[in-house]
Amino acid sequence: MAKVLTSKEENYSQWYNDLVAKADLAENSAVRGCMVIKPYGYAIWEKMQAQLDKMFKDTGHVNAYFPLFIPKSFLSKEAAHVEGFAKECAVVTHYRLKNDPDGKGVIVDPEAKLEEELIIRPTSETIIWSTYKNWIQSYRDLPILCNQWANVVRWEMRTRMFLRTTEFLWQEGHTAHETSEEALAETTQMINVYADFAEEFMAIPVIKGAKSANERFAGALETFTIEALMQDGKALQSGTSHFLGQNFAKAFDVQFANRDGKLDYVWASSWGVSTRLIGALIMAHSDNNGLVLPPKLAPYQVVIVPIYKNGEQLAEISVKVNEIMAKLRKRGISVKYDNRDSQRPGWKFAEYELKGVPVRLAIGPRDLENGSIEVARRDTLEKTTEQIENIDQVVEDLLEAIQKNIYDKAFLFRAENTTKVDSYDEFKALLNTKGGFFLAHWDGTSETELLIKDETKATIRCIPFEGDGEEGFCMVTGKPSKQRVIFALAY
Amino acid sequence: MAKVLTSKEENYSQWYNDLVAKADLAENSAVRGCMVIKPYGYAIWEKMQAQLDKMFKDTGHVNAYFPLFIPKSFLSKEAAHVEGFAKECAVVTHYRLKNDPDGKGVIVDPEAKLEEELIIRPTSETIIWSTYKNWIQSYRDLPILCNQWANVVRWEMRTRMFLRTTEFLWQEGHTAHETSEEALAETTQMINVYADFAEEFMAIPVIKGAKSANERFAGALETFTIEALMQDGKALQSGTSHFLGQNFAKAFDVQFANRDGKLDYVWASSWGVSTRLIGALIMAHSDNNGLVLPPKLAPYQVVIVPIYKNGEQLAEISVKVNEIMAKLRKRGISVKYDNRDSQRPGWKFAEYELKGVPVRLAIGPRDLENGSIEVARRDTLEKTTEQIENIDQVVEDLLEAIQKNIYDKAFLFRAENTTKVDSYDEFKALLNTKGGFFLAHWDGTSETELLIKDETKATIRCIPFEGDGEEGFCMVTGKPSKQRVIFALAY
Repeated sequence: MAKVLTSKEENYSQWYNDLVAKADLAENSAVRGCMVIKPYGYAIWEKMQAQLDKMFKDTGHVNAYFPLFIPKSFLSKEAAHVEGFAKECAVVTHYRLKNDPDGKGVIVDPEAKLEEELIIRPTSETIIWSTYKNWIQSYRDLPILCNQWANVVRWEMRTRMFLRTTEFLWQEGHTAHETSEEALAETTQMINVYADFAEEFMAIPVIKGAKSANERFAGALETFTIEALMQDGKALQSGTSHFLGQNFAKAFDVQFANRDGKLDYVWASSWGVSTRLIGALIMAHSDNNGLVLPPKLAPYQVVIVPIYKNGEQLAEISVKVNEIMAKLRKRGISVKYDNRDSQRPGWKFAEYELKGVPVRLAIGPRDLENGSIEVARRDTLEKTTEQIENIDQVVEDLLEAIQKNIYDKAFLFRAENTTKVDSYDEFKALLNTKGGFFLAHWDGTSETELLIKDETKATIRCIPFEGDGEEGFCMVTGKPSKQRVIFALAY
Repeated sequence: MAKVLTSKEENYSQWYNDLVAKADLAENSAVRGCMVIKPYGYAIWEKMQAQLDKMFKDTGHVNAYFPLFIPKSFLSKEAAHVEGFAKECAVVTHYRLKNDPDGKGVIVDPEAKLEEELIIRPTSETIIWSTYKNWIQSYRDLPILCNQWANVVRWEMRTRMFLRTTEFLWQEGHTAHETSEEALAETTQMINVYADFAEEFMAIPVIKGAKSANERFAGALETFTIEALMQDGKALQSGTSHFLGQNFAKAFDVQFANRDGKLDYVWASSWGVSTRLIGALIMAHSDNNGLVLPPKLAPYQVVIVPIYKNGEQLAEISVKVNEIMAKLRKRGISVKYDNRDSQRPGWKFAEYELKGVPVRLAIGPRDLENGSIEVARRDTLEKTTEQIENIDQVVEDLLEAIQKNIYDKAFLFRAENTTKVDSYDEFKALLNTKGGFFLAHWDGTSETELLIKDETKATIRCIPFEGDGEEGFCMVTGKPSKQRVIFALAY
């Protein structure tokens, strides 16, 4: 079969775009920068949502829903926040169309102008804290642990499917607490939840750490992040959790009577992950044959393809396949039977490789005679012949092995592409040749960070929580440094 | 305890607003006409979503996601559609804010004006059919059976929480078919799914039927509806399914090669239900003590309140309660244990009555001695004393009985408030005294329908699928009529 994807080695960016299109994940829409998430791509998002939602609820959170619109004046209330978001806002100014008097379709009715413009939420801190003001009087009303699943809009100039789109889907948690310690503990808890999700479900190893001041969320005192390494050696920020201090409580005057009966401002966190995670999933594992999906997030984990010459053979095979499917489903394994007559087996094999289905079973008349079945795993493309009798156990074990293998592969890749550097020259030389994560000493100043960014485009991805604590000297200025931080080129 | 709700009899509308607020379902936001759906209200929506989503998938549908924005020119492509929606559109005209040169917050940057304005989707037919154009070449690409869960915006002048809000949450199914028959069968299938959901899960009897031409969706050839009767005698349209013919295919030039190799336009349906269903749920069952929730949609089905005088008693009770909870959960029953020390039992009883929790269990030291427990059902407010030993079976049976009882009660109410009328005078006399559904003959013309609406505010809710087929004469014009239709005042 002809290759349908540009190879990664030839053009990584084109490979990514080809894959998103050919695996039926998403496509560009008629609206600039907005994508259509197609059913197969959306099914991955649904799997992610279900698991994350469970993890949020297991840690005591509840879901709610806040308005899409934010009054313009709300954005201005937190100085850093408006600075960060004002330049990329979709603004609603009118609430009605009318027939064009010239008879050409419809025009905006100038008489239906809003008194105050409304911003489509780029994030919801402001509308949520204006609401929390009414919910919180006393420490007895705290903590508030809300999450919402929503769409948000940021008017990005350069967009890329899943990675950076004008509209995207995400969840945003917004919590309110009595004390700084409690809000910070929540911030930490949630970055840990994201890391567990990334590693256990997405099979992507991540580094947890704090952002430098430059890279913090607009309005946060601390931003914690999980950073993943893509196969082209670039970093992808995959989830963030922000300690907001009392900034939003002060902006919206949210005070509570504390245990001493005194008024105090409420402490806050917010945290989110988005459909960007699908981009991470694609770029961390996939190959030149298509997607490689971790079994725990695959829309279906197994596909069964019948090999037959006539309807009689298909009928016999289908009887056996139904038995196999029942056994697999009993173990909680999701399975699709592709008995379409319109496509040949070879076409189907390529199709499911493209779509990253973890395990493919193929069964023909000779298999029926022998009680055997062909098992192909997507991650290594290896094929074996197994007995039908215990195929459910074989597949269950294989799915576990695949989940582990793709994590191990990504972990090894990251290990091989993480480099300790002690001189700026070495850093610059390796950044564009080897790529990956660089562990380097930094003097802690924004000045040095921006100089490095200007000269190399590399940014500090995070100050890792679990560094080796080795002290040293900044690779640029030679000033003292408490620990190495992670630099990389990033999406 | 003082009544916290205005009584239904005193002021139904105020009762509704009180209930939405006091049961913690939703509240008005800072943005005109937009509500905040609070965690308890959102939990009901999540239950609805989970069940509907399962029913959609069981009937072969998949989820996808299409953009929030619709280019203004798209709306104009289907004449009736733009006519129906242009007057209530939120319009995005700019994509950036900037600092006010006068130093007062931010203003819209006049240089960031969009070339073409974007409409916030009031419904997604246009953006979806512009997408389907690329997905459909041949009959082999059909049917397409997509659904999306999304927010939509309609700039309503008079809003009411859940029933009519500027932004609301819904699902919208959009399907594409080879033939008119197939699209019509889909339209019918989905109104049946909605009716099954309303009756089996919401415990609300509904009447299925077709809308008159006046009341059809903008762009549809047929609109099917489910109509429910609220306790104040008004109808609530609770879900609609539209047969769109080839209107949107023609507007967006979506043709396919049919089985004869000829080009034909694709046939379409669309169907949706929204957070309005929560309004229906409230108004169909609740009473002056608060919400009455059907067990199948209650965020938690059982609450357990301990009655104790000291920590020692509470500890003993809690041991037993943990056993009871484990047994209930084993049967798939959701249960909350309210052991808060900050509120008295009487306060908790009132609180859970307000919130409509179907079953309340109360247990104190004497119960522990006797192996007994108090069981209160929310629908009838009856209390019994039961043995702890088999409490799980008792509660399971009781939940079923409650689900059935509130349906039966609503069914009886509707029967008592459905009136056959043969004269217009009788209709007018009873409409504002008795209210409810009126079965009357109508001559089938928009003229007569509009006359009745002008004079009485009543509308034709639907031409029922399962009428008695009795022919007669229009109550207004005396012209012949094939069957009675349903008139009512409506939300």
